[in-house]
Amino acid sequence: MRALFDWKELKTNSDGMIPAVVQEEGTGEVLMLAYMNEESYLSTIRTGVMTYWSRSRNELWVKGATSGHYQYVRSLSIDCDRDTILAVVRQVGAACHTGNHSCFFTPLAEDEKDQ
Amino acid sequence: MRALFDWKELKTNSDGMIPAVVQEEGTGEVLMLAYMNEESYLSTIRTGVMTYWSRSRNELWVKGATSGHYQYVRSLSIDCDRDTILAVVRQVGAACHTGNHSCFFTPLAEDEKDQ
Repeated sequence: MRALFDWKELKTNSDGMIPAVVQEEGTGEVLMLAYMNEESYLSTIRTGVMTYWSRSRNELWVKGATSGHYQYVRSLSIDCDRDTILAVVRQVGAACHTGNHSCFFTPLAEDEKDQ
Repeated sequence: MRALFDWKELKTNSDGMIPAVVQEEGTGEVLMLAYMNEESYLSTIRTGVMTYWSRSRNELWVKGATSGHYQYVRSLSIDCDRDTILAVVRQVGAACHTGNHSCFFTPLAEDEKDQ
Protein backbone atom coordinates (compact mmCIF):
# COMPACT_ATOMS: atom_id res chain seq x y z
CA MET A 1 0.00 0.00 0.00
CA ARG A 2 0.96 3.64 -0.28
CA ALA A 3 0.47 6.15 2.55
CA LEU A 4 -1.59 9.23 1.74
CA PHE A 5 -0.40 11.05 4.88
CA ASP A 6 3.01 11.38 6.44
CA TRP A 7 3.13 10.42 10.10
CA LYS A 8 3.91 14.02 11.00
CA GLU A 9 0.63 15.14 9.43
CA LEU A 10 -1.25 13.00 11.97
CA LYS A 11 -1.95 13.99 15.57
CA THR A 12 -0.38 11.78 18.21
CA ASN A 13 -1.53 11.42 21.81
CA SER A 14 0.51 12.32 24.94
CA ASP A 15 2.56 9.14 24.42
CA GLY A 16 3.38 9.94 20.78
CA MET A 17 1.03 7.27 19.47
CA ILE A 18 -2.26 7.01 17.60
CA PRO A 19 -5.03 4.56 18.53
CA ALA A 20 -6.18 2.22 15.78
CA VAL A 21 -9.70 0.81 15.87
CA VAL A 22 -9.79 -2.57 14.16
CA GLN A 23 -12.97 -3.66 12.42
CA GLU A 24 -13.56 -6.97 10.67
CA GLU A 25 -14.36 -6.92 6.98
CA GLY A 26 -17.72 -8.44 6.16
CA THR A 27 -19.11 -8.82 9.68
CA GLY A 28 -18.34 -5.23 10.71
CA GLU A 29 -17.43 -6.50 14.16
CA VAL A 30 -15.13 -4.23 16.18
CA LEU A 31 -12.30 -6.55 17.18
CA MET A 32 -9.84 -4.51 19.23
CA LEU A 33 -8.05 -1.23 19.70
CA ALA A 34 -4.27 -0.96 19.73
CA TYR A 35 -1.68 1.77 19.30
CA MET A 36 0.68 2.72 16.49
CA ASN A 37 3.84 4.77 16.49
CA GLU A 38 5.54 5.91 13.31
CA GLU A 39 7.51 2.66 12.91
CA SER A 40 4.39 0.48 13.18
CA TYR A 41 2.42 2.81 10.91
CA LEU A 42 5.05 2.57 8.18
CA SER A 43 5.39 -1.18 8.67
CA THR A 44 1.61 -1.72 8.45
CA ILE A 45 1.41 0.17 5.18
CA ARG A 46 4.52 -1.47 3.72
CA THR A 47 3.52 -5.05 4.61
CA GLY A 48 -0.30 -4.90 4.61
CA VAL A 49 -0.25 -6.69 7.97
CA MET A 50 -1.48 -4.81 11.06
CA THR A 51 1.51 -3.88 13.18
CA TYR A 52 1.31 -2.03 16.48
CA TRP A 53 3.54 -0.68 19.18
CA SER A 54 3.27 -2.84 22.28
CA ARG A 55 3.07 -0.46 25.21
CA SER A 56 3.61 -3.29 27.70
CA ARG A 57 6.61 -4.88 25.97
CA ASN A 58 7.83 -1.60 24.46
CA GLU A 59 8.50 -3.17 21.08
CA LEU A 60 7.11 -3.49 17.57
CA TRP A 61 4.22 -5.94 17.56
CA VAL A 62 3.27 -7.69 14.35
CA LYS A 63 -0.17 -8.96 15.30
CA GLY A 64 -0.22 -12.72 14.65
CA ALA A 65 3.56 -13.18 14.62
CA THR A 66 3.35 -15.64 17.53
CA SER A 67 -0.30 -16.78 17.33
CA GLY A 68 -0.70 -16.91 13.56
CA HIS A 69 -3.74 -14.68 13.99
CA TYR A 70 -2.67 -12.08 11.45
CA GLN A 71 -4.79 -9.13 10.44
CA TYR A 72 -4.58 -8.34 6.73
CA VAL A 73 -5.35 -4.71 5.93
CA ARG A 74 -8.33 -4.08 3.68
CA SER A 75 -8.52 -0.33 4.22
CA LEU A 76 -7.12 2.38 6.48
CA SER A 77 -8.90 5.64 7.25
CA ILE A 78 -8.13 8.60 9.47
CA ASP A 79 -10.76 10.59 11.34
CA CYS A 80 -11.61 14.29 10.96
CA ASP A 81 -9.18 15.25 13.75
CA ARG A 82 -6.42 13.05 12.30
CA ASP A 83 -5.90 11.47 15.71
CA THR A 84 -7.55 8.05 15.29
CA ILE A 85 -7.07 5.34 12.66
CA LEU A 86 -9.80 2.96 11.52
CA ALA A 87 -8.48 -0.27 10.02
CA VAL A 88 -10.78 -2.71 8.24
CA VAL A 89 -9.08 -6.11 8.21
CA ARG A 90 -9.37 -9.74 7.31
CA GLN A 91 -8.84 -11.43 10.67
CA VAL A 92 -7.22 -14.87 10.78
CA GLY A 93 -8.59 -16.78 13.78
CA ALA A 94 -9.40 -14.87 16.96
CA ALA A 95 -8.34 -11.25 17.48
CA CYS A 96 -8.24 -11.61 21.26
CA HIS A 97 -5.49 -13.42 23.18
CA THR A 98 -8.26 -14.96 25.35
CA GLY A 99 -9.53 -16.89 22.31
CA ASN A 100 -12.60 -14.68 21.93
CA HIS A 101 -13.07 -13.45 18.38
CA SER A 102 -13.27 -9.83 19.59
CA CYS A 103 -11.68 -8.26 22.66
CA PHE A 104 -15.01 -6.57 23.52
CA PHE A 105 -16.79 -9.56 25.07
CA THR A 106 -17.45 -8.09 28.54
CA PRO A 107 -20.59 -6.03 29.24
CA LEU A 108 -19.82 -2.78 31.05
CA ALA A 109 -23.38 -1.80 31.92
CA GLU A 110 -26.81 -3.37 31.88
CA ASP A 111 -30.34 -2.08 31.58
CA GLU A 112 -32.06 -1.49 34.90
CA LYS A 113 -34.95 -3.59 33.67
CA ASP A 114 -32.66 -6.62 33.36
CA GLN A 115 -32.26 -6.73 37.13
CA MET B 1 -28.48 1.73 33.07
CA ARG B 2 -26.44 0.22 35.83
CA ALA B 3 -22.62 0.04 35.72
CA LEU B 4 -21.10 -3.41 36.09
CA PHE B 5 -17.64 -1.98 36.80
CA ASP B 6 -16.50 0.88 38.99
CA TRP B 7 -14.35 3.43 37.19
CA LYS B 8 -11.39 2.43 39.38
CA GLU B 9 -11.62 -1.15 38.06
CA LEU B 10 -10.91 0.18 34.57
CA LYS B 11 -7.48 1.10 33.20
CA THR B 12 -7.03 4.73 32.24
CA ASN B 13 -4.42 6.11 29.86
CA SER B 14 -1.64 8.58 30.70
CA ASP B 15 -4.24 11.36 30.76
CA GLY B 16 -6.56 9.52 33.18
CA MET B 17 -9.08 8.78 30.44
CA ILE B 18 -10.41 5.81 28.50
CA PRO B 19 -11.07 5.86 24.74
CA ALA B 20 -14.58 4.94 23.64
CA VAL B 21 -15.14 3.48 20.18
CA VAL B 22 -18.62 4.39 18.95
CA GLN B 23 -20.40 2.01 16.60
CA GLU B 24 -23.82 2.51 15.06
CA GLU B 25 -26.53 0.02 15.85
CA GLY B 26 -27.86 -1.74 12.78
CA THR B 27 -25.33 -0.55 10.22
CA GLY B 28 -22.29 -1.51 12.32
CA GLU B 29 -20.55 1.61 11.05
CA VAL B 30 -17.73 2.93 13.27
CA LEU B 31 -18.70 6.56 13.80
CA MET B 32 -16.00 8.11 15.99
CA LEU B 33 -13.68 7.73 18.93
CA ALA B 34 -13.78 10.02 21.95
CA TYR B 35 -12.55 9.96 25.53
CA MET B 36 -14.26 9.48 28.87
CA ASN B 37 -13.18 10.39 32.36
CA GLU B 38 -15.01 9.17 35.46
CA GLU B 39 -17.56 11.99 35.37
CA SER B 40 -18.51 11.34 31.73
CA TYR B 41 -18.58 7.57 32.32
CA LEU B 42 -21.03 7.94 35.21
CA SER B 43 -23.09 10.49 33.29
CA THR B 44 -23.31 8.24 30.21
CA ILE B 45 -24.57 5.33 32.28
CA ARG B 46 -26.97 7.45 34.31
CA THR B 47 -28.52 9.23 31.33
CA GLY B 48 -28.13 6.69 28.50
CA VAL B 49 -26.73 9.51 26.33
CA MET B 50 -23.09 9.33 25.24
CA THR B 51 -21.10 11.87 27.23
CA TYR B 52 -17.38 12.48 26.83
CA TRP B 53 -14.63 14.61 28.25
CA SER B 54 -13.65 17.27 25.74
CA ARG B 55 -9.86 17.42 25.75
CA SER B 56 -9.84 20.66 23.73
CA ARG B 57 -12.42 22.51 25.83
CA ASN B 58 -11.55 20.69 29.05
CA GLU B 59 -15.19 20.18 29.99
CA LEU B 60 -17.95 17.60 30.07
CA TRP B 61 -19.31 17.09 26.58
CA VAL B 62 -22.82 15.72 26.09
CA LYS B 63 -22.64 14.71 22.45
CA GLY B 64 -25.54 16.38 20.65
CA ALA B 65 -26.17 19.05 23.29
CA THR B 66 -25.53 21.81 20.75
CA SER B 67 -26.13 19.99 17.43
CA GLY B 68 -29.05 17.79 18.46
CA HIS B 69 -27.04 14.83 17.18
CA TYR B 70 -27.39 12.76 20.31
CA GLN B 71 -26.07 9.23 20.65
CA TYR B 72 -28.40 6.97 22.62
CA VAL B 73 -26.61 4.06 24.24
CA ARG B 74 -27.67 0.60 23.16
CA SER B 75 -24.84 -1.30 24.83
CA LEU B 76 -21.48 -0.69 26.48
CA SER B 77 -18.66 -3.22 26.57
CA ILE B 78 -15.12 -3.17 27.91
CA ASP B 79 -12.22 -4.96 26.28
CA CYS B 80 -10.07 -7.74 27.73
CA ASP B 81 -7.50 -5.22 29.07
CA ARG B 82 -10.23 -3.00 30.52
CA ASP B 83 -8.69 0.00 28.82
CA THR B 84 -11.09 0.60 25.89
CA ILE B 85 -14.87 1.00 25.80
CA LEU B 86 -17.07 -0.06 22.88
CA ALA B 87 -20.39 1.77 22.71
CA VAL B 88 -23.14 0.68 20.34
CA VAL B 89 -25.48 3.62 19.83
CA ARG B 90 -28.49 4.95 18.01
CA GLN B 91 -27.07 8.00 16.25
CA VAL B 92 -29.34 10.98 15.62
CA GLY B 93 -28.17 12.75 12.44
CA ALA B 94 -24.46 12.87 11.68
CA ALA B 95 -21.81 11.84 14.21
CA CYS B 96 -19.18 14.13 12.69
CA HIS B 97 -19.12 17.90 13.10
CA THR B 98 -18.24 18.12 9.37
CA GLY B 99 -21.67 16.74 8.51
CA ASN B 100 -20.31 13.36 7.49
CA HIS B 101 -22.16 10.48 9.10
CA SER B 102 -18.90 9.00 10.42
CA CYS B 103 -15.68 10.81 11.33
CA PHE B 104 -13.67 8.21 9.35
CA PHE B 105 -14.28 9.51 5.84
CA THR B 106 -10.64 10.13 4.83
CA PRO B 107 -8.54 7.34 3.27
CA LEU B 108 -5.12 7.02 4.93
CA ALA B 109 -3.56 4.64 2.40
CA GLU B 110 -4.36 3.27 -1.01
CA ASP B 111 -3.49 0.11 -2.87
CA GLU B 112 -0.43 0.41 -5.10
CA LYS B 113 -2.49 -0.98 -7.96
CA ASP B 114 -4.88 2.02 -7.70
CA GLN B 115 -2.13 4.33 -8.87
